[in-house]
Amino acid sequence: MSVPQTNFKSPFRFRRASHAVLTSRDLPKSREFYTEVLGLVVSDEDADTLYLRGLEERAHHSLVIKRTVGRPMCERIGLRVFDEEDLDRARHTFEKLQLACEVVDLPFQGRTLHTRDVMGVPLEIVASMEHRPRRDMQVQEHKGGAARRFDHYQITAPDIRKLADFYTGLGCRIADYLMAGDHPVGVFLQMKDTPYDLVFLERDGPAYHHCGYVIPDVQSMLRACDTLGELGWGDCVEYGPGKHSVGHSYYVYLLDPDGHRVELLLPPIVYMDGDDAPHVWDVTQVPRATEAWGLPPRRSWFSNRSPFPDVEVTHPAPGGSPVSLEDFLQMAG
Amino acid sequence: MSVPQTNFKSPFRFRRASHAVLTSRDLPKSREFYTEVLGLVVSDEDADTLYLRGLEERAHHSLVIKRTVGRPMCERIGLRVFDEEDLDRARHTFEKLQLACEVVDLPFQGRTLHTRDVMGVPLEIVASMEHRPRRDMQVQEHKGGAARRFDHYQITAPDIRKLADFYTGLGCRIADYLMAGDHPVGVFLQMKDTPYDLVFLERDGPAYHHCGYVIPDVQSMLRACDTLGELGWGDCVEYGPGKHSVGHSYYVYLLDPDGHRVELLLPPIVYMDGDDAPHVWDVTQVPRATEAWGLPPRRSWFSNRSPFPDVEVTHPAPGGSPVSLEDFLQMAG
Amino acid sequence: MSVPQTNFKSPFRFRRASHAVLTSRDLPKSREFYTEVLGLVVSDEDADTLYLRGLEERAHHSLVIKRTVGRPMCERIGLRVFDEEDLDRARHTFEKLQLACEVVDLPFQGRTLHTRDVMGVPLEIVASMEHRPRRDMQVQEHKGGAARRFDHYQITAPDIRKLADFYTGLGCRIADYLMAGDHPVGVFLQMKDTPYDLVFLERDGPAYHHCGYVIPDVQSMLRACDTLGELGWGDCVEYGPGKHSVGHSYYVYLLDPDGHRVELLLPPIVYMDGDDAPHVWDVTQVPRATEAWGLPPRRSWFSNRSPFPDVEVTHPAPGGSPVSLEDFLQMAG
Amino acid sequence: MSVPQTNFKSPFRFRRASHAVLTSRDLPKSREFYTEVLGLVVSDEDADTLYLRGLEERAHHSLVIKRTVGRPMCERIGLRVFDEEDLDRARHTFEKLQLACEVVDLPFQGRTLHTRDVMGVPLEIVASMEHRPRRDMQVQEHKGGAARRFDHYQITAPDIRKLADFYTGLGCRIADYLMAGDHPVGVFLQMKDTPYDLVFLERDGPAYHHCGYVIPDVQSMLRACDTLGELGWGDCVEYGPGKHSVGHSYYVYLLDPDGHRVELLLPPIVYMDGDDAPHVWDVTQVPRATEAWGLPPRRSWFSNRSPFPDVEVTHPAPGGSPVSLEDFLQMAG
Repeated sequence: MSVPQTNFKSPFRFRRASHAVLTSRDLPKSREFYTEVLGLVVSDEDADTLYLRGLEERAHHSLVIKRTVGRPMCERIGLRVFDEEDLDRARHTFEKLQLACEVVDLPFQGRTLHTRDVMGVPLEIVASMEHRPRRDMQVQEHKGGAARRFDHYQITAPDIRKLADFYTGLGCRIADYLMAGDHPVGVFLQMKDTPYDLVFLERDGPAYHHCGYVIPDVQSMLRACDTLGELGWGDCVEYGPGKHSVGHSYYVYLLDPDGHRVELLLPPIVYMDGDDAPHVWDVTQVPRATEAWGLPPRRSWFSNRSPFPDVEVTHPAPGGSPVSLEDFLQMAG
Repeated sequence: MSVPQTNFKSPFRFRRASHAVLTSRDLPKSREFYTEVLGLVVSDEDADTLYLRGLEERAHHSLVIKRTVGRPMCERIGLRVFDEEDLDRARHTFEKLQLACEVVDLPFQGRTLHTRDVMGVPLEIVASMEHRPRRDMQVQEHKGGAARRFDHYQITAPDIRKLADFYTGLGCRIADYLMAGDHPVGVFLQMKDTPYDLVFLERDGPAYHHCGYVIPDVQSMLRACDTLGELGWGDCVEYGPGKHSVGHSYYVYLLDPDGHRVELLLPPIVYMDGDDAPHVWDVTQVPRATEAWGLPPRRSWFSNRSPFPDVEVTHPAPGGSPVSLEDFLQMAG
Repeated sequence: MSVPQTNFKSPFRFRRASHAVLTSRDLPKSREFYTEVLGLVVSDEDADTLYLRGLEERAHHSLVIKRTVGRPMCERIGLRVFDEEDLDRARHTFEKLQLACEVVDLPFQGRTLHTRDVMGVPLEIVASMEHRPRRDMQVQEHKGGAARRFDHYQITAPDIRKLADFYTGLGCRIADYLMAGDHPVGVFLQMKDTPYDLVFLERDGPAYHHCGYVIPDVQSMLRACDTLGELGWGDCVEYGPGKHSVGHSYYVYLLDPDGHRVELLLPPIVYMDGDDAPHVWDVTQVPRATEAWGLPPRRSWFSNRSPFPDVEVTHPAPGGSPVSLEDFLQMAG
Repeated sequence: MSVPQTNFKSPFRFRRASHAVLTSRDLPKSREFYTEVLGLVVSDEDADTLYLRGLEERAHHSLVIKRTVGRPMCERIGLRVFDEEDLDRARHTFEKLQLACEVVDLPFQGRTLHTRDVMGVPLEIVASMEHRPRRDMQVQEHKGGAARRFDHYQITAPDIRKLADFYTGLGCRIADYLMAGDHPVGVFLQMKDTPYDLVFLERDGPAYHHCGYVIPDVQSMLRACDTLGELGWGDCVEYGPGKHSVGHSYYVYLLDPDGHRVELLLPPIVYMDGDDAPHVWDVTQVPRATEAWGLPPRRSWFSNRSPFPDVEVTHPAPGGSPVSLEDFLQMAG
């Protein structure tokens, strides 16, 4: 029942969750969603790929969307390390853990390491990307949610403890650790100083649940939702606006045209000093572990996710499943 | 299928929806809800009655809450006419319509007419109230939603056409008229220049559905919800935050400790010139007549209401019922 | 030293301040300012005239801008009465007061009365305009300040008492009456239910000081200012953002490319019941009659105004002049 | 004319600007200002000292205010390093630079190093403080600006190059470097990932110009200003609200009852990757280096500062001085 300890002597250090690589069956529709609704900027694009970044981001992209004819997937989640030496040490570390590594050459980003974590989640690790100018001051061009910067991932997986051990072993800190009695059901991992870079929740997986972008204020959140409504996509506001109790942030969850989920969140609190002990919650004792007020998420929010390619999805040990909106309404009678 | 016409020669003119009289089984809890969550100001109170007003209101109260040991009810809805002559003409008009009238003397308000509308809704009509200072500039004292002013009522009733004929006959204008095919299912009536003072929707009734208060901005809406969460009343955020398609406004619906519903809405648009034709919607043709995006309201929002005392509740003609969240989720599978 | 009394038996009733007619030396620049910075919608335009309206306005225009080669002016201020009969009675009333009247035929608006008030301010009075769809729900198109609706005028004039007598005689109510000792120096006149439609302040005149548009929130105010900065017009933020003490509203004052001044204000409070007595302020006793905090306006805000055509400008009786930013800084040493 | 290079091999690393120690002639007034206007939380207090923190801060204090009978001063600026070893290496580093060090024992914070920088600015360096609970979720208690966290300092000093060399030598990065031709006049130094922790501008000094706190949104900024107005301190809004061009942030500058200046800023952009080259501005070429729009700061903003104790204030080499509001208005005529 102990909480995994951060290895502060990890041979390399992650800097942050940095980008996602998704696939889409309709690239123009994706483009409309991410530029008009989220307000991302197109850094580059060709017939098969779209590179997007938030308004204040200097790194070339935080979202890559590739055309597919198959089922839309999350190809990889991107992590960033501090420098090229760190990247070498990361490769060495992963190889020692028997996790296959490949160094690849990709447009607009530095030397890139393709590997997987202990659960099989496909990772793309970089130390650098090309720079593009920040666009946060060009208010006249801002659209929809005016998304500022990439913040975090959420991934579902059947074995939270295993993932928590793996990532704390690589220097990640635990912000929140969710237990159901003495069984871990969620871990919120920090690389940078915000509440989390990587969130793993216990459900079938590994699978990609969502990524989150920071937006400037709740007016921008409404503007994103209103734009969805105008575009005839009002059903794509899947959950919220609301406020998380774990994580401190205001949220809305949107579905893109391929069903990939994205969270817009207000500027989060900052864990400035890196000296917070993990906050351990027993979700069976906390009536509102997800939302500070209002209704729980609908079942689709729990069960729908984007698959990773070539990963076996397994089920967690049987046990309590989270209370969905459907469950809640049925209990409410 | 014609829309009722406003009688611009009505013998008297309503000014606006002005106040509600509710009963509560726990006055201190009510006080906490309305002052801490909504941010209303207590104008006066004694052991049995609480008089509340919005931050910018000069009239003594827009909400009266009386102690009860029975079932919490809406005793009366309050309407305001222009002056004392109007009040006399109102009495005369109601009596000619065979609607019993009584002039009563109530604290803090001028001569008061008690009567009922054509459906039996208990009305309280006044031409004046005592004045209290506006508190909108005393930002340091503002709490929760910082509710500024009373805006409107919503009432459920089985015969919309009858009510629309009655109130347009008394000079009210129709902002929105909701049809299901050729059958009226809702009417949004204007007295002042905002989208509506009195809303009637076809369901069992007459019964009191909610009243609405205008708040300054969406930050205040979140502050009201957050305060509910802190007070352990997070379940009382029944619906929203969201945006109405009919009515143009951003909303959240809260339940007070007795189950009375209240809407907080952002500053509405203004119908400045009184020359808008009624907007007629066929709800069977409009996919999103209630909310511009997101989920429909849960069943309780449709079915729970505060009763009026001594009023027979009847059912509308059988027909399509609105799509509740429960229906929606079931259809979504 | 008495305050003028409203004539509630005026033969006709104004509905509201409705539109302004300005001239510009550079129509494309004006268009850019009013659409990109304020966020107004172009209802119609030709080579010589631009018709603009706010996002929630149904009336065809609230601002008309005409090309000129001469000095930019305010040709007329527009007022609206309730109906065509009112317009006839207005004409009759003005003629009885020896104020020359002319009924003219203008595009997009109903029968129009051109006349002047007792001080020579050129008025354009209408009972109707063509309708255009509201655009407040089309959030995707909104720009800059997303200005919602026309709110009020401010005019400088040498004889406040004379104007207050004239307009209260025509049914206008006084919201605020500013005295310097026993000498009136300002009057805030209401036609609709917001704090003011017509403001007259004692200075050289009559001349047009500014008109005000209501914007949704302070985020929109910043967006208007930021857009000005991006367009290289950052000097055109003449005063604010700040908060008025008289009038209760948050403001920013901008200068258009011809030097016409426009105020953006947050949704104002509502004088719902028409039963407020005039608020009388002695400006010599109130340390902050203009701004609730921060610095006073710079001298240009007091002294620069748009002239009316063919109106003799006279000076008020000598007396205390308002404390400008320049005076304030000099006193501060 | 080269820009100083960051020494990435510095023997120790600063984590962030963490706290300020000020003195006050009226502690209760200070308390009212910082709790009611800024919205800080009192962590501890006694008759002579007040310890304050922002709503999301876990560290015990970010502002210490001590009673004085003399001239109000800034006793020390506080910096934080990563751990106790870092603190030892910091001491060693400063001693090698002939900068006298003393390790002191202070309430609520870990082992504390008192020393000075190369210009004589008194520093207080810590690796840890006691923890107190975050109060960001307790919305019901929030007041005024609801200040969230300490962000940065600004200090005036006569020799910018010397300071830039010193602090980059200790591992600080340069975000912005302001030149007047080939003469450095300002340096914005980063320790954490926001635009700056330490800002030095060329003027008489060293002296303390202000510290900045991050607030959640512009509504909170207005609430702080409005509270000042209500408390009769409306003159203490010295500059703003406005938007900086360098630094990307929205600001307002307030003066506390002792004349110490504090900036409230909206959540800043994040320099996520630490790979931005210093942005070099020639202030003689940039028309708006301080504010993106509106008026420049008044002279007091440039010339008034809180002295450091026992520090000789010297003057920069004669040269162009910044354009104050007074200068600007005079040039504008």
